[in-house]
Amino acid sequence: MTAIPGYRLGDPSLPPSALKAADLATLKASLLFGEEDVAALRKAHDVVKDQTDAILDVWYGFVGSSPHLLAYFCDPKTGQPVSAYLEAVRKRFGQWILDTCRADYDDAWLAYQDEIGRRHHRSGKNKTDKVSAAPNIAMRYILALVMPISITMKPFLAKKGHSPAEVEAMHAAWTKSVLMQAILWCRPYVHPDDF
Amino acid sequence: MTAIPGYRLGDPSLPPSALKAADLATLKASLLFGEEDVAALRKAHDVVKDQTDAILDVWYGFVGSSPHLLAYFCDPKTGQPVSAYLEAVRKRFGQWILDTCRADYDDAWLAYQDEIGRRHHRSGKNKTDKVSAAPNIAMRYILALVMPISITMKPFLAKKGHSPAEVEAMHAAWTKSVLMQAILWCRPYVHPDDF
Repeated sequence: MTAIPGYRLGDPSLPPSALKAADLATLKASLLFGEEDVAALRKAHDVVKDQTDAILDVWYGFVGSSPHLLAYFCDPKTGQPVSAYLEAVRKRFGQWILDTCRADYDDAWLAYQDEIGRRHHRSGKNKTDKVSAAPNIAMRYILALVMPISITMKPFLAKKGHSPAEVEAMHAAWTKSVLMQAILWCRPYVHPDDF
Repeated sequence: MTAIPGYRLGDPSLPPSALKAADLATLKASLLFGEEDVAALRKAHDVVKDQTDAILDVWYGFVGSSPHLLAYFCDPKTGQPVSAYLEAVRKRFGQWILDTCRADYDDAWLAYQDEIGRRHHRSGKNKTDKVSAAPNIAMRYILALVMPISITMKPFLAKKGHSPAEVEAMHAAWTKSVLMQAILWCRPYVHPDDF
């Protein structure tokens, strides 16, 4: 695998998450995310592994055609998209699709969710890629994008000849995992006592 | 309609939301929530209007069997559920199912979303019902519960003889609207500049 700049899943130098395994267990239970979802995502991995570029084209098309979302990739001084930033994020986003399917939900995974959260929030945005794009992504859009990231995935999950029930199971698991991760990315936005 | 204690949709004495119609429009667009979803929810209204008690039984069963969720309805001093609180919330929750199907997405609706958010957060929890339950609902569970509130709804939407495609459309619209509302309820948890 080619090294992806800024990709830090498993990096032992990341600060550990304040969220512990027991917290993740109750979060999973609240999302109805169970072992059958873990298994369905493992299956989805083989379905999507050669489709990540096509999936990213759909997502980047959506963001690129939504001025209020594209703004987060733009330099506020010029109003222009920062192409180096778009490209760096795209590489990690493709890897994230595969990681979502193969996640171990361990402390390293939790620590990287925190890091991804910081990269959306003003406490860490732009630092990884040393860019001068908008300083903060509004939390509401991180959560709202769960819907397009869920809905647009279904046709890709259906492309490899699985039964409707299998596609449904993979899609449900995908949606739960994406919401779970989006929730974890909100941590830097909220007082620890309230999160 | 019998008056429901604490129900304030349309109450002109509620403070107006800081979120404006333009903000709601970009939020809807980010969720892929469109006019077809509004129409599907209108259709869902007639499907679920005589099923709200059965739906609430499912949801209350889930919360009641999840100690980390039931805790929000319990008095921290005694560890016991506050039954007056559970019952008062249940009445509003049933009405909320119908309101979700018929929402106007206007300023009054936005103001009431804010009020519902405050009732989950330590800034307003327990006040409406004058109870002494846990002082704050952790934001992550408000968002996580979108999944059970979505998934458990589908069989109820399928009970009145609509085609699979119609059920799918009603269910997709329901899920988008529930996530949209859960996002709006997070507003008191987050600094206005970050939300």
